[in-house]
Amino acid sequence: MTEKAFQDSYPDDLSHCYGCGRLNPHGLQIKSYWDGEESVCRFQPRPYHTALPGYAYGGLIASLIDCHGTGTAAAAKYKDEKREMGSAPPLRFVTASLHVDYLAPTPIDVVLELRGRIKEIKGRKVVVAVTLSAEGSVCARGEVVAVQAPQDWIDKLKAESSKLKAKD
Amino acid sequence: MTEKAFQDSYPDDLSHCYGCGRLNPHGLQIKSYWDGEESVCRFQPRPYHTALPGYAYGGLIASLIDCHGTGTAAAAKYKDEKREMGSAPPLRFVTASLHVDYLAPTPIDVVLELRGRIKEIKGRKVVVAVTLSAEGSVCARGEVVAVQAPQDWIDKLKAESSKLKAKD
Repeated sequence: MTEKAFQDSYPDDLSHCYGCGRLNPHGLQIKSYWDGEESVCRFQPRPYHTALPGYAYGGLIASLIDCHGTGTAAAAKYKDEKREMGSAPPLRFVTASLHVDYLAPTPIDVVLELRGRIKEIKGRKVVVAVTLSAEGSVCARGEVVAVQAPQDWIDKLKAESSKLKAKD
Repeated sequence: MTEKAFQDSYPDDLSHCYGCGRLNPHGLQIKSYWDGEESVCRFQPRPYHTALPGYAYGGLIASLIDCHGTGTAAAAKYKDEKREMGSAPPLRFVTASLHVDYLAPTPIDVVLELRGRIKEIKGRKVVVAVTLSAEGSVCARGEVVAVQAPQDWIDKLKAESSKLKAKD
């Protein structure tokens, strides 16, 4: 498995996402890595991430699939361009669509494993298939269509982020 | 608009969901109501529900669509059976699949409005189409395929919930 998480190479200004931003103290702060051709992320739900008693919340599962998917998309695009992950200009992906099939109730008290696989890279679009497993059983299967955020939008967001910081 | 939220009629034992459980103090505690033939839910994202600066997190949007969808499914099924919402035995729906198309970045600093519409009720399955809007513009469009949880599963979950409480 690679050593540095995809999310740890996102620029600071783009690292406040509730799902994957390392600078969001309230968030999930997921970490994704390459494991051969697949990307992997392990996450232990917190006790309050309940759906029905004993099971993990479907919205959490969707969130994990979403952020692991966009992180995998960025990492794959860097690889495709033969660039080091995190090198400038940053490649940051947003979600165009998310689909999740909930195949079985997901236990809340174990570490969940997400595995991503690239289905397609075409221009600015990357499609990632993701499975979410608990103790070796696949509980959910998802697909993320991720789109590379345009550089001028990233620049605008960075400027907004600086303004917000200046206000603090 | 109806006065009592769908989620406020869920039985206590099934009211710990992170998205919609009124007994989950860490959760989103969404509230959904009928507004004519549509269901409506309004939610103000918290500042930490960030995606990129200034915008709401896609996983939050998926979570809102999910729980508003399953709540609408339950309410629609009660209506279909000409029963009062919340009357015993409880009708509780779980998500079989969730699809979200993110049409435009969703601002984080306004109240978001979700509107649900029943596409299909067939046996134990209810399909709900949901839009999520900010200031009158649709930012995301979703579909929830919800399935009525079997009564014996609900009974088992209630028993588990009582055991957890006994441990407290």
